[in-house]
Amino acid sequence: MSQVAQALIGDSEFDRDTAVALRAPGVPGVYDTELSAGWTIISAVNGGYLLALLGRALGDALPHPDPFTISGHYLSPSTPGPAVIRTEIIRTGRTLSTGQASLFQYADDGTEVERIRVLATYGDLGALPDDVRTSVRPPAIPAYEHCLGPNDGPAPIPGDSSLLERLEIRLDPATVGWAVGAPSGKGEMRGWFGLADGRDADALSLLLTVDAMPPTAFELGLKGWTPTVELTTHIRCRPAPGPLRVSITTRNLAGGFLEEDAEVWDSADRLVAQSRQLAKVPLGHG
Amino acid sequence: MSQVAQALIGDSEFDRDTAVALRAPGVPGVYDTELSAGWTIISAVNGGYLLALLGRALGDALPHPDPFTISGHYLSPSTPGPAVIRTEIIRTGRTLSTGQASLFQYADDGTEVERIRVLATYGDLGALPDDVRTSVRPPAIPAYEHCLGPNDGPAPIPGDSSLLERLEIRLDPATVGWAVGAPSGKGEMRGWFGLADGRDADALSLLLTVDAMPPTAFELGLKGWTPTVELTTHIRCRPAPGPLRVSITTRNLAGGFLEEDAEVWDSADRLVAQSRQLAKVPLGHG
Repeated sequence: MSQVAQALIGDSEFDRDTAVALRAPGVPGVYDTELSAGWTIISAVNGGYLLALLGRALGDALPHPDPFTISGHYLSPSTPGPAVIRTEIIRTGRTLSTGQASLFQYADDGTEVERIRVLATYGDLGALPDDVRTSVRPPAIPAYEHCLGPNDGPAPIPGDSSLLERLEIRLDPATVGWAVGAPSGKGEMRGWFGLADGRDADALSLLLTVDAMPPTAFELGLKGWTPTVELTTHIRCRPAPGPLRVSITTRNLAGGFLEEDAEVWDSADRLVAQSRQLAKVPLGHG
Repeated sequence: MSQVAQALIGDSEFDRDTAVALRAPGVPGVYDTELSAGWTIISAVNGGYLLALLGRALGDALPHPDPFTISGHYLSPSTPGPAVIRTEIIRTGRTLSTGQASLFQYADDGTEVERIRVLATYGDLGALPDDVRTSVRPPAIPAYEHCLGPNDGPAPIPGDSSLLERLEIRLDPATVGWAVGAPSGKGEMRGWFGLADGRDADALSLLLTVDAMPPTAFELGLKGWTPTVELTTHIRCRPAPGPLRVSITTRNLAGGFLEEDAEVWDSADRLVAQSRQLAKVPLGHG
């Protein structure tokens, strides 16, 4: 990574832009926030960033700190600007607690419009035992210096969006054919992921990571955006410092929908997050 | 299959046992139901059966008939007996609508105890275009007559539970080592699935199918049950008549949790459902 001064967890762009503030001491579970224009791709607010905002609010509302599994259903497109998050504690237990959260923005007449609703079960990643019986191996991604960033290669990666300035993504050359008009035809996208200011990953930033790579649809030869219908993420382990490896796979594009499965690996070769989303196939496909 | 008279969709055990009744004409979205003892495994009500109950209520409450994606968070163990399902319509659109549903049972003093809460986005499977660009192939499962049922093999498959009488499951011999004390060590469970009365599959019964096989943990050498924390299912296609093939995979057992990924294929070789659950590793593992 090229950063000189590395931002710290709790004092970084990502932390400032996912901050939530209790509306009033007497109103538990209601958080005001501001959707930053810094996490938009074209004009859409990134869906993983929205999950991280909701995840932070739930982490405050629930007795456990970390999202173990969070399921979000996307209702209407978000825009930069003010928003309110309303949380509900559904159940609290010794090791797990479950909550619900909705993010609303405001129509011109001031009425609240719901953007995304999530159910999530939280726990404490730091309290998990060390047993690991993983059969899956980290994805085979070339070394960081052999992967391609937005300014590498014969054509710049399209999508001249704020989000890309805040991320350090280096794609496996085997999955960037789409950027030069030669998609592989395989529903795969792989690469290295970091935050541009050098902030290390934590459970909250992983909620962003799973939805921050270019869509696999690009490598299937499809253009345009693939709107997320639903995205569920499991955080399986507290990530070690250092860059992450992300592998996204689409195996079934059918009936106008596709799934995107993401795996995120940390520098210690631990599988730290798994996610799956159902998304709509871009309208202008073919 | 061995049935003489085949039960029809809408007139079968599964349909009767997932029936829901509007509590009152003036109370939209509230459904009374009865959890049947016929879908228990040991003493626990099957989690897929619960999803099907909630799915049926939401299919009635929402303007679209079929669950495209349904995410359930499990809160407390259900027991056979009366229950109430409370639904909420979150958003209705032209092609998709999103709702929420909770299933409650009654404590001794009559107060409602929430068992499971779901978010779901519905559409119309019959309205989807025919495009299929699937790279994944059906699982390699031996022919039905070469797979093993509860009464085959050197030892009966344990779990002498009502659920097993209502299902026609035939497991791939490669994934039944656990039944004779020789688990493969791989997190895989594969086999044929049907309902015992011969009722064909539909979107609702697929919600049961994804959670009806023996847990992959058995093949990992673990004993006891793996309680579901969260289960999300995507229904991708209306299933063709005939038996289904189900493949369940666990790739990452770590920190006391594991995921189970299920794929369900129909007789026309279409991937009809994908699901993933996060579950707790059985306590008595080793």
